[in-house]
Amino acid sequence: MRIVVALGGNALLRRGETLNIDSQHKNIKRAAKALTPIALKHSLVITHGNGPQVGLLALQGEAYKPGSAFPLDVLDAETEGMIGYQIEQALTNILSSERSVATLLTQVEVDRDDPAFRHPSKPIGPVYMREEAERLAHERGWSVQPDGKHFRRVVPSPLPKRILEIGVIRLLVDQGVTVICAGGGGIPVVRRMDGSLLGVEAVIDKDYASALLASELEADALLMLTDVDAVYTKWNALGAKAIRRATPDALSRFEFAAGSMGPKVDSGCTFVTQTGGISGIGLLEDAEAILNGEAGTMITRDTDGIAYWD
Amino acid sequence: MRIVVALGGNALLRRGETLNIDSQHKNIKRAAKALTPIALKHSLVITHGNGPQVGLLALQGEAYKPGSAFPLDVLDAETEGMIGYQIEQALTNILSSERSVATLLTQVEVDRDDPAFRHPSKPIGPVYMREEAERLAHERGWSVQPDGKHFRRVVPSPLPKRILEIGVIRLLVDQGVTVICAGGGGIPVVRRMDGSLLGVEAVIDKDYASALLASELEADALLMLTDVDAVYTKWNALGAKAIRRATPDALSRFEFAAGSMGPKVDSGCTFVTQTGGISGIGLLEDAEAILNGEAGTMITRDTDGIAYWD
Repeated sequence: MRIVVALGGNALLRRGETLNIDSQHKNIKRAAKALTPIALKHSLVITHGNGPQVGLLALQGEAYKPGSAFPLDVLDAETEGMIGYQIEQALTNILSSERSVATLLTQVEVDRDDPAFRHPSKPIGPVYMREEAERLAHERGWSVQPDGKHFRRVVPSPLPKRILEIGVIRLLVDQGVTVICAGGGGIPVVRRMDGSLLGVEAVIDKDYASALLASELEADALLMLTDVDAVYTKWNALGAKAIRRATPDALSRFEFAAGSMGPKVDSGCTFVTQTGGISGIGLLEDAEAILNGEAGTMITRDTDGIAYWD
Repeated sequence: MRIVVALGGNALLRRGETLNIDSQHKNIKRAAKALTPIALKHSLVITHGNGPQVGLLALQGEAYKPGSAFPLDVLDAETEGMIGYQIEQALTNILSSERSVATLLTQVEVDRDDPAFRHPSKPIGPVYMREEAERLAHERGWSVQPDGKHFRRVVPSPLPKRILEIGVIRLLVDQGVTVICAGGGGIPVVRRMDGSLLGVEAVIDKDYASALLASELEADALLMLTDVDAVYTKWNALGAKAIRRATPDALSRFEFAAGSMGPKVDSGCTFVTQTGGISGIGLLEDAEAILNGEAGTMITRDTDGIAYWD
């Protein structure tokens, strides 16, 4: 099977954990271990989020010289290098010589008129108390929004339209290479009138980018891994039920949290509807079990309505 | 022909210029333009330096939170993302759809006992006045060394032994893809006793890494592009002569500046001796002319001793 796995921000940095080299190493090792059985049995393409990392790089640039931070497209590219390298190395250390692993920079075209540019919504970087968030918003022209009890910087998150390196990714996958790509949802670029590319200040949702990638690669499965064990009908509320198996149609009757399960369910449903493949959502550690229907939530056309875990 | 081109630090950032998003964009566009005729006619692999960039990222991390900068191997990976993205985009914008361009993260194995780890010599980051350099050396445990009239931080620069992604690079080159790889000389890793890889705090010389890459790819030519128009017998001294064409043997009678022409001449001679290919050194803008023997310095076994430009 050809499988695209999206590693969520919360799979690479646990909630409440501070981003530093040690936490990142530890979490990426854990992710590589969870993906190893899949990498050995299947043709695997890995994508990952970059919210905490791209936010940190922006803060570092700002701290060194106010106003000198590189634009978000360049920082997105830096995080593809940073995180891609660490995943590649961790995976190579487990797989040894059984599989080639390659990390490819990935530009993703977005629509220059995407309404997201006027309505920033993607949280990046650390959490702040309200007062500090308001001060930073004022000083740096940031948009900030509540995130649980705290506040975070938010940036535009336009929809991915086209993966520019798709031909090269396909070529490597066809040759049996385990590919890491579209990190952070890809580096967002728009097309100028003359057809040339221009990087833009945004962070693409990695689940939407992963669904596009999985469709383009005609993958059999799209797995989205996070720190929640399944999709719930009402998250954190009385009477919440963990969904075991559902059709895209059955899921369309529910509402899921924007910026959290929402994009995952959307992405899974789009992929399943477009391709007839399956899509799984659940815990990083359950990666293989989700694929086998033994854990997490499976979206598939090949079921009756909806079924729940006991 | 299959050609490996190494873009020198001074080809991507002019001497005396400050590194920021504007200078980087401008210089990378210039580089892409210079390489376009070669990319269209030949099979092209591009490498690049990262000295100013990796130094800047280290400073940014330090400014945000002292002691929290990520280690150099991770910063090397970030610069592969940053610079690779910009080169790929600039090149794609000129080549349009005539060639696929791909940027591949590259780990390069070095010897854990390389004496370079005890003798840091590779300058990174900006220049400092002596007093500030000494203060930083004291505060941060840096090694610093004179660089012209100023001082710079220096880090270990071990010799590249093995390019870990060589199989994937070869695969892409064989398929006609223009590949950007081994940026900053590659991400330095050592092999632990158990065979696993571990990133190390160093910056590999990109000319040495490029020579290894060119040999492994059985390239026909290795071009090293910088801001000097040729190799001179005595740089900046009375009676200096610009070398037009020379055998590795003829060049071995001269001494060239360490950290500048030295590694370029060494790398060119090694490549030419090992493979019988040709190696050119000169101005970025002369890239194509150097390849045709109409500018710069050509190292080749196929000549008599040494010849000079008039």
